[in-house]
Amino acid sequence: MCELLGMSANTPTDLCFSFTGLTRRGGETGPHKDGWGVAFYEGKGVRMFHDPEPCATSPIADFVSTLPIKSKNAICHIRQANVGNINLANTHPFARELWGRYWVFAHNGQLPQFLPSSGEYQAVGDTDSEALFCDIMNNVRQSLIRDATSEPLTQTLVALAQNYAQQGVFNCLLSNGDWLFTFCSTKLASITRRAPFGPACLKDIEVEIDFAAETTPQDVVSIIATEPLTNDEQWDIYERGEWKLWQEGEVIACGKVNVPEHKNESEMVSPDLSLQPSC
Amino acid sequence: MCELLGMSANTPTDLCFSFTGLTRRGGETGPHKDGWGVAFYEGKGVRMFHDPEPCATSPIADFVSTLPIKSKNAICHIRQANVGNINLANTHPFARELWGRYWVFAHNGQLPQFLPSSGEYQAVGDTDSEALFCDIMNNVRQSLIRDATSEPLTQTLVALAQNYAQQGVFNCLLSNGDWLFTFCSTKLASITRRAPFGPACLKDIEVEIDFAAETTPQDVVSIIATEPLTNDEQWDIYERGEWKLWQEGEVIACGKVNVPEHKNESEMVSPDLSLQPSC
Repeated sequence: MCELLGMSANTPTDLCFSFTGLTRRGGETGPHKDGWGVAFYEGKGVRMFHDPEPCATSPIADFVSTLPIKSKNAICHIRQANVGNINLANTHPFARELWGRYWVFAHNGQLPQFLPSSGEYQAVGDTDSEALFCDIMNNVRQSLIRDATSEPLTQTLVALAQNYAQQGVFNCLLSNGDWLFTFCSTKLASITRRAPFGPACLKDIEVEIDFAAETTPQDVVSIIATEPLTNDEQWDIYERGEWKLWQEGEVIACGKVNVPEHKNESEMVSPDLSLQPSC
Repeated sequence: MCELLGMSANTPTDLCFSFTGLTRRGGETGPHKDGWGVAFYEGKGVRMFHDPEPCATSPIADFVSTLPIKSKNAICHIRQANVGNINLANTHPFARELWGRYWVFAHNGQLPQFLPSSGEYQAVGDTDSEALFCDIMNNVRQSLIRDATSEPLTQTLVALAQNYAQQGVFNCLLSNGDWLFTFCSTKLASITRRAPFGPACLKDIEVEIDFAAETTPQDVVSIIATEPLTNDEQWDIYERGEWKLWQEGEVIACGKVNVPEHKNESEMVSPDLSLQPSC
């Protein structure tokens, strides 16, 4: 399956440490070698890097891991597809503009039978993930007023996510640069780092960081990932159907909805049996 | 003023040579130090790099200039703003999705009084350039059927461009990954390279290339730029009001419309007197 990585922070923060850990899983410590992408918000702008090459050996990923791009919201994805369609158009994260903001989305899972509703947003590639994103955007645009507050927005997003999770595996990260919405269908974890900051070691490569040297006492930085990225910190594991809305590094809304366990759930995230390069 | 660079080719071709020349003008041989961006189409996907830093000294631009990203359609822009708003959201090229394709746009000029029509596409930043792009996208979506052929599409684009050029300076590059539309309000040049290929020297930095060693006899590669980038080749200079639609390195449609010369035209492209960071 693919892997997700998101960041929500109250001060512009670089993602170098977590990105370095995740990218090892793109063909080295993990099998997610079918492309990768990352989106860093800077104000209302968003800086994106995409590559259909394995991120463990991608010169662009190597370069990005050294770039101290500072962002309050970031979304990253590494992909493991099985059948064809390993190309740039199918590489997450995907972006669209709505209400004068860029919305960015990445998905982990599979909805092989998903039929998107029609609307203004259309997929460019042929993954179900991008079709799901366009479906979300069409529903948000059609059912909410411009710049809807977080309460009706979250209600809409949770209802859509629950509906998708009933049809297949749907773990996702979605942001408009102001907030980061996260939904767990099967697997997602998070950690919030705040003062007093300490050291941390990556799981996937021998890299240690002392966050105390990189931060101020006011900083709050949360990382959301498919699997914990460090081996010496306590990560919170999302439950099935759990969702959290992050802003400035904090959870500002959360909840849990019923999501069935699918008989073929492991197949939906396994590269060997997937029909579509869903993520 | 800003500078534009576009490429249309019949085979995936890298832009390293031209990009290297253009980026020198971003703070070294030219004053366009307020950001830069480039979009490379790969199939229906598009790979974009944006940076609000001067491209002559940007580590990302330096890295991109060494990347042999091969594309049949590419758009690049270097920016010279004067008043504020040097940020990522205002950095060209801009992208939106329409009819299941990414459309990419870059603009050189200024329309200080421009009022965009309302519609689904909205600007994220505060340049008149992005507002113009959204206006184009709204007009195309509202006035044409899905996947309109090049004839009605070009008619619409030319009419819009002429209207904008009557209000100010409007040189532009627009692509959907299949074709590249170019419009000259004041300044644009092009060159088509085909067999027998020869050497060429950049104007802005001591770099020479032998295209014969990089190409096959079937290759056709056209470069469109605000100013010629080489000093030993014959570039075609666009006339005022001239437009060309490029595909696979060739002009597939072209024409010329009346565009008035504005009294304050030099001001509209001069950084000293511009009111808005239009490009």
